[in-house]
Parts: sequence; C-alpha cells; structure tokens
Amino acid sequence: MNDDKEFRLSCPLPLTDYPHILMAHGGGGRLMHQLIDKIFVAAFGVGNLEATHDGAVLKPPGGRLVFTTDSYVVDPLFFPGGDIGRLAIDGTVNDLAMCGGRPLYISTGFIIEEGLATDDLWRIAQSMRLAADEAEVKIVTGDTKVVDRGRGHGLYINTAGVGVIEHDLEIHPRHLQPGDKIILNGDIGRHGMAVMAARENLSFETTIESDCAPLASSVQALIDGGIAVHCLRDLTRGGLATTLVEIADSSGYEINLDEKKIPINEQVRGACEILGYDPIYVANEGRFIAIVPGGDTDRVVEILKSDWPETAVIGEVRPARNGQVLMTGRLGAERTIDMLSGEQLPRIC
Amino acid sequence: MNDDKEFRLSCPLPLTDYPHILMAHGGGGRLMHQLIDKIFVAAFGVGNLEATHDGAVLKPPGGRLVFTTDSYVVDPLFFPGGDIGRLAIDGTVNDLAMCGGRPLYISTGFIIEEGLATDDLWRIAQSMRLAADEAEVKIVTGDTKVVDRGRGHGLYINTAGVGVIEHDLEIHPRHLQPGDKIILNGDIGRHGMAVMAARENLSFETTIESDCAPLASSVQALIDGGIAVHCLRDLTRGGLATTLVEIADSSGYEINLDEKKIPINEQVRGACEILGYDPIYVANEGRFIAIVPGGDTDRVVEILKSDWPETAVIGEVRPARNGQVLMTGRLGAERTIDMLSGEQLPRIC
Repeated sequence: MNDDKEFRLSCPLPLTDYPHILMAHGGGGRLMHQLIDKIFVAAFGVGNLEATHDGAVLKPPGGRLVFTTDSYVVDPLFFPGGDIGRLAIDGTVNDLAMCGGRPLYISTGFIIEEGLATDDLWRIAQSMRLAADEAEVKIVTGDTKVVDRGRGHGLYINTAGVGVIEHDLEIHPRHLQPGDKIILNGDIGRHGMAVMAARENLSFETTIESDCAPLASSVQALIDGGIAVHCLRDLTRGGLATTLVEIADSSGYEINLDEKKIPINEQVRGACEILGYDPIYVANEGRFIAIVPGGDTDRVVEILKSDWPETAVIGEVRPARNGQVLMTGRLGAERTIDMLSGEQLPRIC
Repeated sequence: MNDDKEFRLSCPLPLTDYPHILMAHGGGGRLMHQLIDKIFVAAFGVGNLEATHDGAVLKPPGGRLVFTTDSYVVDPLFFPGGDIGRLAIDGTVNDLAMCGGRPLYISTGFIIEEGLATDDLWRIAQSMRLAADEAEVKIVTGDTKVVDRGRGHGLYINTAGVGVIEHDLEIHPRHLQPGDKIILNGDIGRHGMAVMAARENLSFETTIESDCAPLASSVQALIDGGIAVHCLRDLTRGGLATTLVEIADSSGYEINLDEKKIPINEQVRGACEILGYDPIYVANEGRFIAIVPGGDTDRVVEILKSDWPETAVIGEVRPARNGQVLMTGRLGAERTIDMLSGEQLPRIC
C-alpha cells in the first residue's frame, strides 16, 4: 500500500459510516450516488466527470479518431511502483499512443467486490486522477457496479479511451520494410516481476518497481520530430517476444533480435532465473518498441533518450518473407522465438 | 439458455478441446489469440474488429462527440428476453441515445471467470453481434481478461460507446420548463422481474420477458421530427422513480407523476406484489422518458407509438422550485417519491 503524499487527502466519504463497500453501493440509489460523489467526482474533479448523466458530450477532435479499451484485473491492487488505478489510465493512454493517437478522453468502469475497503477505493481513484493529469487526458464518464463477495477480487477496472490522430502516418505492422530498426525505450520485465514480488505467497522479496508510465508524450515527440514511424507497440501481456511474434506474423517479414542489446535490470534477471521465467515474455507497462526506417535510427534514439536513457536499438527487419522472429543469442547462435501457449504470469494487468 | 435460430452456428473454437475457458486463455499467448479469433472475431466479423492491434482507428464523426461506458454484471447470464451480451450492447447504445447521440462505435471488455462454458461465451458473442447490427453500431475494438475461479461470476462485460450529435439541441435536465410533459415508451418493470424470475433460487415462475431493446432509432425519430426535446433518460437501475428524482433534483423544478397513467403489465405487477417491490423502482432496459414542451406532446406520442404502442403521457413539470417528485395516486392523493438508499434488486444489469 502506498503512503505517498499524493494520497494524503482523506476520503470525503465518511469512513466511520462506510469502511467497506456494500452491495447497496451498486444499486442505483442514494448510496450509489453518494459513492460516486464522494469518491469518483471528488477524485476526478467536477470539471472532468459529468457524473449524473448517461454519457459525456465532447468537443470533436480535428482528425481521425482512435478508440480503445482494456480491463484491469491485476492482483494485488497495490504493487511497488503503481496500483490498478494508475495501470488503468497508463495502459489505455498507451494503447491510444501506440495507434499514433493523442489521448484525449477516458471512461472508467468499476466492478467492485462487496467488502472492498472504501479507503483503498479512494486511494485508487486519486491515483487515477494523478495519472490522468500526468498523461493530459480527461476522465469524462464512468460507471460503477458492485458484485457479491466471492464474485470478484476487490476491484476490476475497465477504461476506454478516445484520442485523435493529427498526422497522416499509417502506423501498422503492414508498413514494415526490410532494413527498419527496432528501438526499445528501456529495460524489460519490471512490471511483471514487481507484481509477482508483491503477491503475498511469493517467497522472495526485491525492490523491483513496476515500469508503469504513460508513453504518449514520447510518441508525440517522434511524430513532431518528423520520424516516419512504421509501427509502434507497447510490451504488455506476453512481453517483448509475443509482441514481436505478432508483428512479424502480420508483416510477413523476418525480424531479428540481438539478445545482448536488450536492457534487463540485474534484479529482474535474478528474479526471472529463480522463478524460471524468460524476461522477453514478461509484461511491461511503460515500455514500447518503435519500428522505424533504418536512416532515422540515430534521431529516434536521440529523441527517446531525453526521457528514456536506456533506449536501445535491439533488432531489425530482414528481407526474408517468413514472418518469423529470430534472436541472436549472446554466443552468436540464432534461435526462433515463438509465442507461449498460455500465460507465464496470470493477472499482471 | 436460448436455442433460437440466431444461435444455430456452431462455435468455431473446437469445443472438444476447450469446453471451458482456462486461465491460459487470458495470458496473451497463443490460446488467447485463438480465443479472440475463434469467438470474438468470428462473431463480430473481421470488418468490425481490428483484433490484433491496440485500438481502432475510426472515421471522425461530423458533430459533437458523445462517449459513455457501462459494465454489465447481470446474474444469470441468460434470462427471458435477453442475455448479458445483448444487454451490454443495448445498454450502451441507449446511453448514447439519451445524450441525443447517434451511436457509431462500441468497444467490448470481457472479464471471464475460468471455467465458463466456451459455448456460452460463443452464444453471448453472437448475441452481441446481432444486437449491434440491429442498433446499427460497429464493435470496433476489445479486450479479454480471464480471472481465477471464485474471483468472478462467469462473465462480466464492459462496453464503451462513441456517438455523434448531429443537431443543436442541448438535452439536459437543466432545460426543463414548467408545462413540459413526461412521455414514457411502454410498460415498466419487465427487465428487473424477468431477471429475478430467472434466478434459480426464486420460488415463482412467470413468462415475463425483459424489455431489453435499443432506443436510438426512436430518439432519432423525435429529433428528425423536429421535436425540441428537453431531456431524455433511460430507466435502468433504480427505475422510473430514481431517474425522475435525479432529473427533478438537477432541474430544480417539481415533477408530478400520474400513477394511473403508468403502464404496468399484470404479471409484472403480480410478481412485484409477491416480492414486495414497487415497480416504479424496478429496472428496465428498453424504456425511456422524453421530457418535451407541452405543445409537442401529441406529435411525440404519435412518433413513439409507431414503435411503442403503449407510449403514455405520465406526468408533467410544474412551476414549483422544490426539485421534488410527487406522484398522484389512484385515489387522487399526492405523495413524495424519493430515491431508495440501496438496491432493490442487485445485479440486474
């Protein structure tokens, strides 16, 4: 649980009266209105959320629209470097950014299990507001449901996001070209390992913090810098490996990764070894790859390094039309990288 | 469970291999890709869902945007007259319509409990596709999470919706005027009582079907008919009573309801009496009120009756500035209608 100064404001819902969420808080009556007013409107701000109406009426953006959604079921709700609320904002902001969009508006859907500590909900709502301010998006509409004990797990959050595309680039795996470089904005595997370490039944402790962060301003910097970005993708569930397998498969080209160029923090590497995970499959929440024309590589690295000092060129697109990902290992041998069948780490986002 | 011809197509995911959803179906790997392809893309159509990317890039609408979200946690997943999938489409379509918007795009977020019958998921996905086609909206993006057994309840669905407002009306309770009439499109209480009747532990059986239906074309007909609509609201959680209490409170005016004008089906009335519910607080999923200038009443009734034969003028806005709702009973006495504290019927949507 986080006790930073960001969370210092006390919850406006009287915690002595309602220390825990009740089924009745989801029933559409006075208690639900009170919950929305005292937690969500109080945290998100009245200017942002038109709480008493069915939806938000918004200024139309001046370009193509981008629209995305994600549900967040991370266990536990609070973990080193973040919480489900920050994740729910950053994750959706990042999905919009990966489509080349500037994030504008966020909706929030809460599925609360009866018995959730009201103060935890307040901390999470505040964390969402901070994350939204940081990413310059507005939380404009929302919904609250409460489910019976044993029918949820504290809290699930869905966010949907609307953004605008203010340029003419078509950012998609189908635009990959042989010779394109694959650029990564930092070390991988932190988020997944931070969440694993926070799970109470895990027998090791680390100081690994989630890399959870908004990526939209970095994408904007590339676009403003005139980079002809071919593809962008954040490295969430399934990690770097799964993302690249998807991209290679969509594009039809072979992708080569250079293992020794991929930044991995020593603690993350150690934790992965103990648990038998391969960091290239571990989820991140503030890492992305930009696939760009080879000639733009230096400028992309320069632009990204101002926010992400560990930015690295980790691979390239090759002319072979086999849609596969190969990784050149530390000793020089190439091996094929495949998608995992199921999950390595369940419920990390 | 529904066996209508709409559900006749067999599920493209081999049910002999995967009769139930596994945690691994949510892990971002091959099994999740297979689930998305064989269930969601198969049901929603490839033209609608850009399944392999982080979001959908959309044609910008030519007016103000409207954006809304709702999560659906109805228990049970299938009930007379509908299922959670149809509810998730119609509910969000209706929220957009109540803002005066023409629904365009829907996002879907699935939170699946491990062990859900794969065939049930397929039926629900198909039902969503049918509901979307009926409401003329496109399902354009989505997300899938799987949670452990005992941490969900079969399936929760979040939908968010984007629509466009193609007129200059400001549809909001603040535009109420004394003399406005309150017009309802049909009998109330069906949805809540249909869901209650479908719950296995309930000791009575009825043939009440949910009123679950899309309302956008009816709203469009009012706007196309040149009606100066002041306020629109669908009568979901909390029912007619809670909705009107909210509106009266926002507008500051007194609202009067005429109890004998409110259509209620005899079976619904009977079931409510047995269970001790007041139908004016029971949820609907295909009922709305339009609050319109008194002079437009006849035309509004005429327009709505073509789709909703039971359309009725059930009340009016009065000059008194007390923000209250009064109901004139069958014997002529007026009583104040208040919001309930919690829920009458949990998890009906």
